[in-house]
Amino acid sequence: MLRRLLLHHARRRRRWHSSSSTSSAAAASAAVPLSSPTFAVFGANTGVGKTLVSAGLVASLLASPSSPSTVSYLKPLQTGFPADSDARFVFDRALALLRDFPRAGATRLVASNHTLYPSPAVEPLPERQDTVVTYGGEGDGHRAVEKVLVCRTMYAWREAVSPHLAAEREGMPVEDEEVRWLVDRWLAEGAEDGDGEVWKVLETAGGVASPGPSGALQCDIYRSSRLPVLLVGDGRLGGISSTLSAYESLLLRGYDVSSVILEDHGLSNDKFLHSYLRKRVPVHVLPPIPADPKDDLSDWFSESSSVFCLLKDTLESFHSRRIQRLNSMQRKSKDLLWWPFTQHNLVPVDSVTVIDSRFGENFATYKVKDKKIVPQFDACASWWTQGPDSNLQIELARDVGYAAARYGHVMFPENVHEPALRCAELLLGGVGKDWASRVYYSDNGSTAIEIALKMAFRKYACDHGILVDNVKDITSKKSICFKVLALNGSYHGDTLGAMEAQAPSAYTSFLQQPWYSGRGLFLDPPTVYIRNKTWQLSLPSSICHDQLSSCDTCYSSLTEVFCKTRDTSSVVNLYASYISQQLSQYALSNNSEHIAALIIEPVIQGAGGMHMIDPLFQRVLVKECKIRKIPVIYDEVFTGFWRLGVESASELLGCLPDISCYAKLMTGGIVPLAATLATEAVFEAFKSDSKLTALLHGHSYTAHAMGCTAAVKAIQWYKDPSTNLNIDLDHMRLKELWDGTLVNHLSSLPTVKRVVSLGTLCAIELKAEGSDAGYASLYASSLLRQLREEDGIYARPLGNVIYLMCGPCTTRESCTLQLSKVQRRLEMLT
Amino acid sequence: MLRRLLLHHARRRRRWHSSSSTSSAAAASAAVPLSSPTFAVFGANTGVGKTLVSAGLVASLLASPSSPSTVSYLKPLQTGFPADSDARFVFDRALALLRDFPRAGATRLVASNHTLYPSPAVEPLPERQDTVVTYGGEGDGHRAVEKVLVCRTMYAWREAVSPHLAAEREGMPVEDEEVRWLVDRWLAEGAEDGDGEVWKVLETAGGVASPGPSGALQCDIYRSSRLPVLLVGDGRLGGISSTLSAYESLLLRGYDVSSVILEDHGLSNDKFLHSYLRKRVPVHVLPPIPADPKDDLSDWFSESSSVFCLLKDTLESFHSRRIQRLNSMQRKSKDLLWWPFTQHNLVPVDSVTVIDSRFGENFATYKVKDKKIVPQFDACASWWTQGPDSNLQIELARDVGYAAARYGHVMFPENVHEPALRCAELLLGGVGKDWASRVYYSDNGSTAIEIALKMAFRKYACDHGILVDNVKDITSKKSICFKVLALNGSYHGDTLGAMEAQAPSAYTSFLQQPWYSGRGLFLDPPTVYIRNKTWQLSLPSSICHDQLSSCDTCYSSLTEVFCKTRDTSSVVNLYASYISQQLSQYALSNNSEHIAALIIEPVIQGAGGMHMIDPLFQRVLVKECKIRKIPVIYDEVFTGFWRLGVESASELLGCLPDISCYAKLMTGGIVPLAATLATEAVFEAFKSDSKLTALLHGHSYTAHAMGCTAAVKAIQWYKDPSTNLNIDLDHMRLKELWDGTLVNHLSSLPTVKRVVSLGTLCAIELKAEGSDAGYASLYASSLLRQLREEDGIYARPLGNVIYLMCGPCTTRESCTLQLSKVQRRLEMLT
Repeated sequence: MLRRLLLHHARRRRRWHSSSSTSSAAAASAAVPLSSPTFAVFGANTGVGKTLVSAGLVASLLASPSSPSTVSYLKPLQTGFPADSDARFVFDRALALLRDFPRAGATRLVASNHTLYPSPAVEPLPERQDTVVTYGGEGDGHRAVEKVLVCRTMYAWREAVSPHLAAEREGMPVEDEEVRWLVDRWLAEGAEDGDGEVWKVLETAGGVASPGPSGALQCDIYRSSRLPVLLVGDGRLGGISSTLSAYESLLLRGYDVSSVILEDHGLSNDKFLHSYLRKRVPVHVLPPIPADPKDDLSDWFSESSSVFCLLKDTLESFHSRRIQRLNSMQRKSKDLLWWPFTQHNLVPVDSVTVIDSRFGENFATYKVKDKKIVPQFDACASWWTQGPDSNLQIELARDVGYAAARYGHVMFPENVHEPALRCAELLLGGVGKDWASRVYYSDNGSTAIEIALKMAFRKYACDHGILVDNVKDITSKKSICFKVLALNGSYHGDTLGAMEAQAPSAYTSFLQQPWYSGRGLFLDPPTVYIRNKTWQLSLPSSICHDQLSSCDTCYSSLTEVFCKTRDTSSVVNLYASYISQQLSQYALSNNSEHIAALIIEPVIQGAGGMHMIDPLFQRVLVKECKIRKIPVIYDEVFTGFWRLGVESASELLGCLPDISCYAKLMTGGIVPLAATLATEAVFEAFKSDSKLTALLHGHSYTAHAMGCTAAVKAIQWYKDPSTNLNIDLDHMRLKELWDGTLVNHLSSLPTVKRVVSLGTLCAIELKAEGSDAGYASLYASSLLRQLREEDGIYARPLGNVIYLMCGPCTTRESCTLQLSKVQRRLEMLT
Repeated sequence: MLRRLLLHHARRRRRWHSSSSTSSAAAASAAVPLSSPTFAVFGANTGVGKTLVSAGLVASLLASPSSPSTVSYLKPLQTGFPADSDARFVFDRALALLRDFPRAGATRLVASNHTLYPSPAVEPLPERQDTVVTYGGEGDGHRAVEKVLVCRTMYAWREAVSPHLAAEREGMPVEDEEVRWLVDRWLAEGAEDGDGEVWKVLETAGGVASPGPSGALQCDIYRSSRLPVLLVGDGRLGGISSTLSAYESLLLRGYDVSSVILEDHGLSNDKFLHSYLRKRVPVHVLPPIPADPKDDLSDWFSESSSVFCLLKDTLESFHSRRIQRLNSMQRKSKDLLWWPFTQHNLVPVDSVTVIDSRFGENFATYKVKDKKIVPQFDACASWWTQGPDSNLQIELARDVGYAAARYGHVMFPENVHEPALRCAELLLGGVGKDWASRVYYSDNGSTAIEIALKMAFRKYACDHGILVDNVKDITSKKSICFKVLALNGSYHGDTLGAMEAQAPSAYTSFLQQPWYSGRGLFLDPPTVYIRNKTWQLSLPSSICHDQLSSCDTCYSSLTEVFCKTRDTSSVVNLYASYISQQLSQYALSNNSEHIAALIIEPVIQGAGGMHMIDPLFQRVLVKECKIRKIPVIYDEVFTGFWRLGVESASELLGCLPDISCYAKLMTGGIVPLAATLATEAVFEAFKSDSKLTALLHGHSYTAHAMGCTAAVKAIQWYKDPSTNLNIDLDHMRLKELWDGTLVNHLSSLPTVKRVVSLGTLCAIELKAEGSDAGYASLYASSLLRQLREEDGIYARPLGNVIYLMCGPCTTRESCTLQLSKVQRRLEMLT
């Protein structure tokens, strides 16, 4: 039953310790059962009658002959206590009101009200109230209907001020996580009891944006469970404004407002709101509340009972439509959608993940069987884009809303607007610092790469005298052929131009893209990884390495791998001669072909399987290209913006490109936008007096205001130590997020082939042979199913590579928690 | 001087007539001079002291020895009049306060207060107040500083209720456009006088979202001029919430809040707000206001004078930073940005358009020379994407803010979320109705096309037995070569795959894309256009047409051009035999090549020069392909979603594709998102038990929640007659937007070669010979400069084609207004 938990208030409450437990709790935040219709009552302002509405709703629920059998009311934060106690008011009023509600037959009500944590200043400590009452004649032969009412206050302070002030003054601070933890427990109560339907009502404190004890706003504190909202509007003069603004603040937190209800003050605010909110939210109006404080409101409540019944019906229908829709989504998605990279035959309908929302690093997924919203850590960082913690998510929402309202979209060529300019300034002062001078916007990684290639080819043509003065002449030079220099295992996107720059793979087969030919010289890169607790270098067979000692191929730490002192090691010559030899050989056998660009993913090849390329090899490669005046492109779509622990992976490589590409994390992982950065020398190659030599590539939404605005916020947020606690200011990089000891341990498990842990990425390749290896592998799938269904981790494999990826702001504690779960599963696999 | 205009109030005011003049006024809304610092005072609620703040600010401005010389205060909407008159209060208080403000030397103040339009119920009619006062000793040898104060009320109603009620009850309705028109006049006043600096303060009514007389919210009524906001916060209990929510409502309209100021009620609301708004908005706090209604507030104002001085400084610095930034943007954009399709050498720094914001169809552009924000009709519909009128823009802002807060971004494969599903339902029930059954999301038109080609090729391979059971076998079938069938002049995007499907052009030269080869058989299409008031058919030389009579090549109307009865005309055979002959000839000379897809832009080729292809030709083409089992792709990126007056251009063609592509207008022109729709038969071609046969193409932000949410709103908005007044419900198409007579007139001008007017597009090709013709043409540039600088129309040519493009909701009146301006310029050109 509902009353099992947390029954007694206590001066000393379970203390909430240290940021570590807080964050773990956040990551492990509880499921929200949808079997109980549950609503959060928010107010357009303080004093608009939230408690009256709660009481009326609770009473009409209890009076209903059918369902529910239990009503649970929660006031998480109460000030002015015990003089004011909304829970007590609801308790008292519900008991009294039940008398007046029309009903068929008798009702037996078991009711209680209690307070968990009063502040030390609260005197006298209120007693727990318990009662059993029977309403209606019992002599009519029917058994009385059984109903239960549980009213509860979580935290109570004496002073009738905002909780953030009361908490400070009375020495009872409460962290948001603590509130959420208790609310989650409350939400979980009774879900599996099967004692009949339970309804729950949570009443917030003050207005929608009133601060809680920590200073976080009401609408932010409760966001994690995203309960549907019953908004109590304001019927007074000015009340239209405060109601609509409150409504908008709720929308800007991603809440669904199920209904608005407000008191009639003779100003017809309800009529206006009804018309304004038409199609979106139903509006209910309550009769004027008697001003006389001595009025016990009996008449008012009885006059209002029909409104409350209607409200109950509205909420009920909202709830059942929501469930119905959620239940239908798997089937509909199977019928209508066409997912990328997905063989639909291999996706059973009940394996489709229904995502109801996200909050920081977690998805809120709906489980059809359990009728529950379950949080899952998004270990794919939503396809490698995700930057925001839950705070940044809300800030970004506000900022993109503003940008949409201010700009909508405005076309870009020959124009300038603030977000595009500001974003360019931040890019050139950040990832482009010390080398780039121009920003070319586009929509995604693929387009950024296609643009980069066009830039590089033009630059090459200029530098090598292939473009002569007469522009028209060159347009017919069909005999000249440009190729790229790239690495096997690379990936640069799915449009044809980007694909042509990568080596053949399952993605590029005739079956997938009949136009693919692979226009490159593709080298075999040496890789590094952790195995048996040691960083090791692995050379491909094409690089001859008889003369290397183990001191050249084993490293005590990642720092050593990146260390510039390796530039004098014997590996350098090996690399340089391999590269030179490949280039000369290619030149000999391909007469009219030019290697006109180098394109690499610096340090980590993402889609190719999370391989870490020896940074020394890439450094040598860049150097060899610069010697030959071959323009260098860094594809930082994956690696950019702190993915690898630094803002740009070029900081790790220790050498700079001529052109680089950014997308994904750039907008905080919220909306598509890409940028190709270039040096002034590259830009100059397009200048002339003819439009025909300009770079004629563009997309309609180039530099769209919302994307640029999000990028401006995100780029600053990541690197500001006041918003990103992971920033190590001394070295301008992220602190270590994946516990080194744990990572080393994983690397020595018998099932594990290699581990790469760097920045926000921890990738683990499982040992697999023959048909288990490679892209089509389903080897890791049982492991991942367990993570998803039992551990609350949503991961997606790359063949037999599983990985955890977080955002630049994710706490180390959360990372450790997830990684421990993976460790447990891997050990079970053994 | 300021007092020139609108000096006398009147029972009968200039009436606002008919929707036509309203809309014209909207389109021609006035410039906002930035030479006068101007702020709008909004309230977090009613009764928070907006007028006290206005009075204090006005007084401290007048007391300042340096600037400004003139302060103009405006109360556009006043209720409770004349008992309440905020303008009179400001007038009286400013006069009184000036006595107490510390100053060096004497000040001579010329002050006035008057009311323009009291409602018929207002009694007694207030007199105009005028006075001249000198403050401070005049005997000190210095001349007195001259200052002017103008206080003004625009509309006044007797009852102290919300203006929307007062307007109705007192029989004085006022349209928003009327309010805006007067505000614009007020903003323009004194801008060119050079009498010294002018400051302006506009005080709104009630809270930020309180209704005006028409029912539009305060924050919406004044959005067109987007004045910087001074937000008067709420210091009472609950005031943190109402202040923050009001702030967010302002952001969701695209306002910049320069400062928050609020009364101290002993609750430290200001401290909380200061900390919450840190880095964004400065917060000022005023001493508690005496509760005694008899208190004349002299002491309070004198106590507050330092706060008001500080406020004045804050606003001053906000204003000058804004101007400084705006002035720097042209230079910075030239230094940092790299515009698409732009030869930077041809863009002088002072020709860069600085876009401060957009409102509906208009850009608000900043003119550096004039220090003015000038509205310009966006005749490019922001690169062909634009859907929203000003209402939809705000709705979209709210919706994308909600989507960002609810979802951020969530990855898509094997997942489903509400916006992606709902959008798919709307697409399949709209543009995909009766044929499509699957939606594949991507980011932009180019990627949608690349995906469509991959779909078509696979389908073709299946249908023609090219894919045999053994998947691995086909990956090595290098000898087979797929090509597309397409039309000369077509354009499908700038990524390589999309480019390969189009005929050679300036965009595809070796100079631009060395990898382009043009993988298609490109046919010459017949076109239709208006010339000399008649729709005419123009056949390319490759189509033999000796036997055609003029009844086959001239049409009385556009309806006739589209009419299905033409299917029996003699042109059909001409077309069919041309197509068959081209296909057979190609097959003969290209042995291993397959024409594996048809790709066309239905009806209009956009980027190719706004050419209307004979719909009959495209119909025959589709038929011939279907006979040969060649999959048909419609590139509706440009034509989709009412661009041509119908939701899908396939309605105009009268035949359906196998695959079609959408982007641009789909999201309401606010954020990138694309969709490729396909039949179930196409989808089936990818199904098997192997992941390798799935469509392996995707982008990180596939089906991103914000884009899908915007699309859901926009798709519904366009076709709902209650939101889009252009919808002709009987025919489910847009009413004619471009005046037929005017269009015909244009088509007969000597400088005009042809006109195409259809749906939201009106394109005019100018006559040009030799080097003037073609893409590089600068022929139209002087015309466009005049439109931009003198007519307030922002247009961008396609070679010697100039066009006007509007959104699906733009009024016919606005279209006519713009088109008349173009007509005038064209006639001058003659």
